[in-house]
Amino acid sequence: VRQHGPDTLGTALVNGIEGDAVSVLDRGLAYGDGVFRTLRVLDGRPFLWSRQYAKLAADCAALKLSVPARPLLEREVSHIAAHIPDAIVKIIVTRGAAARGYAIPRAAKPHRILISAPLAHRRGPVSGVEVLLCETRLALQPRLAGIKHLNRLENVLARSEWREPAIAEGLLRDIEGNVISGTMSNLFLVRGGRLLTPELTRCGVAGVQRARIIELARRHKMPLQIGRLGIEDVYAADEVFLVNSVIGLWPVIKLGRKKWKAGETAAEIRQWLKQDERD
Amino acid sequence: VRQHGPDTLGTALVNGIEGDAVSVLDRGLAYGDGVFRTLRVLDGRPFLWSRQYAKLAADCAALKLSVPARPLLEREVSHIAAHIPDAIVKIIVTRGAAARGYAIPRAAKPHRILISAPLAHRRGPVSGVEVLLCETRLALQPRLAGIKHLNRLENVLARSEWREPAIAEGLLRDIEGNVISGTMSNLFLVRGGRLLTPELTRCGVAGVQRARIIELARRHKMPLQIGRLGIEDVYAADEVFLVNSVIGLWPVIKLGRKKWKAGETAAEIRQWLKQDERD
Repeated sequence: VRQHGPDTLGTALVNGIEGDAVSVLDRGLAYGDGVFRTLRVLDGRPFLWSRQYAKLAADCAALKLSVPARPLLEREVSHIAAHIPDAIVKIIVTRGAAARGYAIPRAAKPHRILISAPLAHRRGPVSGVEVLLCETRLALQPRLAGIKHLNRLENVLARSEWREPAIAEGLLRDIEGNVISGTMSNLFLVRGGRLLTPELTRCGVAGVQRARIIELARRHKMPLQIGRLGIEDVYAADEVFLVNSVIGLWPVIKLGRKKWKAGETAAEIRQWLKQDERD
Repeated sequence: VRQHGPDTLGTALVNGIEGDAVSVLDRGLAYGDGVFRTLRVLDGRPFLWSRQYAKLAADCAALKLSVPARPLLEREVSHIAAHIPDAIVKIIVTRGAAARGYAIPRAAKPHRILISAPLAHRRGPVSGVEVLLCETRLALQPRLAGIKHLNRLENVLARSEWREPAIAEGLLRDIEGNVISGTMSNLFLVRGGRLLTPELTRCGVAGVQRARIIELARRHKMPLQIGRLGIEDVYAADEVFLVNSVIGLWPVIKLGRKKWKAGETAAEIRQWLKQDERD
């Protein structure tokens, strides 16, 4: 399946107007001063929309950006994905265009940029993936931790560590050695029937799918621990899996020489996620 | 003096073509995947051009971006600033436009974006500035330290800590408490005739003007130490000054309750800088 080419795109909307360009003065370009979301849109309906919008609003608030109104954004998402049955829509909210300088202009008006593309790989649940342990480490920045902001060079560096198509994702540690996430996914471990996931108070992105699984675990009374985890915890885990709202859930079956079988807990959580969609 | 408005600009060139917009798929916008330079251009001639280009090339290399050819870039800088006697030109080099995903496409062609504006405040040397000690801390990321990349949310957060026009700049510490720089300038201290400046191996931007002063200090046999400095070193300094290639050199005369006089060493270094321009 070919990825959507770099010079073509389904459609883009910039502040509600069809177009494929933003101002060279946009602070999103200048400083990464903005946030984003990537959502799956099925038949024009954004998947997990309430959660996605709530997270966008929270991330905007964290950067003191005003979030676009929900009905407006919802209309635009539906519009942009109207002719793509199974689409990925990326929403970017930036601080807007401004003169040079880090100071946030009082009059700054946020820009909203929506980009749609067909989902490149439409397929059933992935049975298991191989991952790499990245050398790139995440810096500790509590002020930005959890936020899906536009400063993503660490993710770019980490993702550039491999080209082998067999490797689906890379595991990231922070500079102290704590395991944090994948380059574009959140991480869960299972050990002795307990679900473990890294705390993301000093780095990393706290994704919508992670939040959903944490909630579902609580609802289903599965023991859950959010805390600091080392790479030894990964190797010692009975199951390892990665999640985000586009991929769903990927069981990890290989990391270096270590192998796992796709486990029962991952399968159970997939069932929860499926039921939750129908709710 | 009014700043150049957010919706107007001198001129912009995107990949050599006049225009004020870049693709919504630009990885500079998506991830901050790129680098930049801000230079002063006097009568069409970029100031400190050899150093500026060398630093741009080094920063591009650090991110494995191919740097635009020097003669091409020089022509474009002159062209864009042709009708502005005293201009600021910003050069942005990004990874180019690409489909969604952190992986760097093999075919990625860098984008070069040049933006010119008249220098907002044309004036003589600044006699002294007041600075603020910022609460925002810089994260430690040795892989990106020194590079003037487009991930600048920390600078934006720090600069948003004050609005008082009397305060010209904010001092930044890293998460361990080491003093690193201003939000848009590099820092020097003078103590007992010795020049001190923070090492920038774990965070911060190693600017062209800083490199120039380090070279000039060596040439003039002024004792110089590049190392870790705490805020107590700032308070204990005989002189404190900030530098970048647009502002030149700003003596710091006030930080909280602490006051300094603009010192002799700063004046001497200004003379060196002036002579160096004539060389």
